[in-house]
Parts: sequence; C-alpha cells; structure tokens
Amino acid sequence: MAFKVYVDRMSQPSRAVIIFCKVNGIDFEEVRVDIMKNQQYSPEYKAINPMNQVPAIADGRFKLFESHAILIYISCAFPGVASHWYPGDLSKRAKIHSVLDWHHSNLRRGSAGLIFNTLLSPMRGIPLNPQAAKESEQILIKSLSKLETFWLKDSRFLVGCSQPSIADLSLVCELMQLELLSEEDRNRILSPYKKVVQWMEDTKSATAPHFEEVHRILFKAKKGIRERMATQSGKTELKAKM
Amino acid sequence: MAFKVYVDRMSQPSRAVIIFCKVNGIDFEEVRVDIMKNQQYSPEYKAINPMNQVPAIADGRFKLFESHAILIYISCAFPGVASHWYPGDLSKRAKIHSVLDWHHSNLRRGSAGLIFNTLLSPMRGIPLNPQAAKESEQILIKSLSKLETFWLKDSRFLVGCSQPSIADLSLVCELMQLELLSEEDRNRILSPYKKVVQWMEDTKSATAPHFEEVHRILFKAKKGIRERMATQSGKTELKAKM
Repeated sequence: MAFKVYVDRMSQPSRAVIIFCKVNGIDFEEVRVDIMKNQQYSPEYKAINPMNQVPAIADGRFKLFESHAILIYISCAFPGVASHWYPGDLSKRAKIHSVLDWHHSNLRRGSAGLIFNTLLSPMRGIPLNPQAAKESEQILIKSLSKLETFWLKDSRFLVGCSQPSIADLSLVCELMQLELLSEEDRNRILSPYKKVVQWMEDTKSATAPHFEEVHRILFKAKKGIRERMATQSGKTELKAKM
Repeated sequence: MAFKVYVDRMSQPSRAVIIFCKVNGIDFEEVRVDIMKNQQYSPEYKAINPMNQVPAIADGRFKLFESHAILIYISCAFPGVASHWYPGDLSKRAKIHSVLDWHHSNLRRGSAGLIFNTLLSPMRGIPLNPQAAKESEQILIKSLSKLETFWLKDSRFLVGCSQPSIADLSLVCELMQLELLSEEDRNRILSPYKKVVQWMEDTKSATAPHFEEVHRILFKAKKGIRERMATQSGKTELKAKM
C-alpha cells in the first residue's frame, strides 16, 4: 500500500507535511480532502481521522493525525530524512518538542484565530468577530516577540540550530497564513520582527522550490479574497450613497 | 548539580511532572514557583523559563519547559523509567505524540478555560466571563466525548495501551482540575463518560500513592474556594434582604 497523505493545501499544517515529504524525496500519494466542501466530515475520511481535520497519513494500515506527530513519525520512519530535521541528540530533540508544544497555544492560536475571525469565518457560516480577532492579534504579537527575542535569539533557525528542523517548517507555514491579510495589516504585524522575517526567508530557501510551489494555492486564494472584499466594499459605498 | 523541577502544585502540568518523577524513583529537587505570588515573573525564574510558566526543569545546565517535552525528556534521559511510559516502538510513540498534541487545543483548552473563567480569573484581577466559560465547557464536553468514543475505545489506557503512558498522566492531571468545581457541576460534566471516569481511577491506582499525595493541595484549595463562594453568596443574600 502506498504512503498516503490526506491534505488540503489551504491548511497550513497540511502544507508543512507536503513540503516535508517533497524536500525529503519521500514517495507519497497526495489525497485531497476539500475542507470548503466539508469532505473532512465524510464517512470515508472519518475512518482516517475521526477528529475531522487535516492533515492525516496512512502508512499501510497505520493511520495518524496531528501534524507535529506526523512530521516526527516521517522523520523516524523514512531513512532518507536528513538528521537536522529531527536530531537524535536528546537535548536538541527536547528543545524541538518544547517549541512545537509552545506553538499550539501561542503562535497557532494567535495566527489561526486572527485569520479565522478576520476573513474565513463567514465561509463557515459564522459572522466575523472583531473582538475575537483583536484578542488573537494580541496573542500573535506576543508570540512574534518571543520568537524574535527568545526562540531565534542565538541562531538562524529555531532553538539554536544552524539548519532547519521540523519546528521551523511547521511554524513558518503557520505564519504564511498571514498572506491572506491585506499588505498593510501583514506589514504592520510582521515587519517589526526583523529576525522572524529573515528566518521565514531562510526556511523558504532551505525548502525551495517546494515551499513556493505548495504555497501557490494560498497566493491564488489571497487574490480571490481581496477581490471579493473590494467588491463588497464597493457595494457598501454605493449603498451608502443611494 | 541536582535535577531541579520548578513547579506550583496548583498547576496541573506541574503535578504531572512531579508524579512522574516520584513514580519512577527519580532523585529531584522540587523548587516551588508560587504563581499566586507572581514568582513566575521574577528575574531568577525568567532565566529558567522566559515564558513565565510552570513547570520547567534544569538538568545540570540544560533547561527545558513545556510539560509534554519535559515528560518525554525524563523518559529518555533517566534509565530507570519503565518503557510503557514512552515506548520505543515507532507506531506506539507516534500515537502518544498524537494524543498529546490533540490535548493542547482540545482537552486543555476546554478544561483550563472553564476553570479560569468560572473560578480563578478574579484572583488574577480579571472579571469572571460567563460567555468564555460556556465556550470552554463546550470544548471540554466535545473532548470528553472524543476520549470516551475514540481515544479510550479499545483499552484501559489511551491509544490502545494496557499500561499508562505519559499521555494518560498528563490528561488525567488536566481533568483533576475539575475538582475545583461544585460537586454538582463536576458530576454533570464528567459522569456521562463512564470510560473516562474509570480511566481516571485506573491512572490514579497505577501512580499510587503519589497521585493522591501530590493532589492534596488541590483538595485543600477546593475547600477554601467553596467556603469563600458560600460566604460571598451569603453576603449577597443578606444584601438583597436589606
């Protein structure tokens, strides 16, 4: 049985897993689970991941979900993965676990919460929530500050590494979701953090050309969302004049 | 240098780390960081954990925070730890990572959010937030349902294990925080989940007598909180009658 990767490229942890497989030359079948069509709730997918989320993998009969757990599994199960992605050294590995755990309640919560409450919630039938967006932005800003002053303090990559680990890929894919914001908002949020901006560029370079290729859908979606927002804003202005 | 564990026993991940060390006969020094006195913000502690949270460890010069990362580190660094806590087998280990990752945005978010917004926020100078408490309770109920129907589906312990892993200890310590609620609320939330209730008992038994001993502070705090609430409620009634 082939190694199957169940993903929607619009999901940031899905992109991290696809890029990781491509960078490491892993032979896999990409199975699209279209979250805009609610395919994550289908009975077929429920048998893969009962939490109805992407990504998930099936390696023969072995099934797994949660992107960090998947990245660790692939690092250990496929002999071709270079050791810098998930080092065998106990202390280095512990630091990578630490930043991945921190990611959940900090960077992910801030970034994903901001995007959802500013842009995506109407697509799920939920009204935009400016208060929740504001709280998420505060968590995001605090997380960016910790990245700048602590996690990237001594090195190009996270936790003192000179080469990227699975944590760099996971966290940078998270921040790429900010591409969906307006240029003005994205710059206002990101540009004060010079090390973070450089680290994102370094991680992109280290995973080229796959990083750009896998993110193409995001840039396309950005264009669509911004055009839709411009049309809506035009309609509102027209209404106000009438 | 001794192996130091920086904790406040009122914090559920702190208790998981202390119990784990005690159960596995690890020689450690417990350093109390009193979060009610804001000691997590002291310059001394900032040098241990710049995120100002407990628990953290210092093993000689090596420092680490985030409780899941700590439990994994201890499992690997101390040869006396029985293998069922963090099995070497790739698939079993991957499943443990998966449930630990799931914990962050589900069980922890629901349980900790409910307790904070129902009881603890005034102690941090933040008003109680019934709407946030309600949302947290919904996340908690959904998480309990996933524990009952998926994570504990096939076995006494999580992810198909016949003996406890670090994930059982971490998640059961999280749920113990519900002791701070009234008996009525706690029963209403927990009692529909028979497997979850039995699994909590099994995890307590597997880690006796340390589990009870380390949780003693929680039962004491519960008594204090409920007495304070009864006094406040009496005062409110008296005021209403005047």
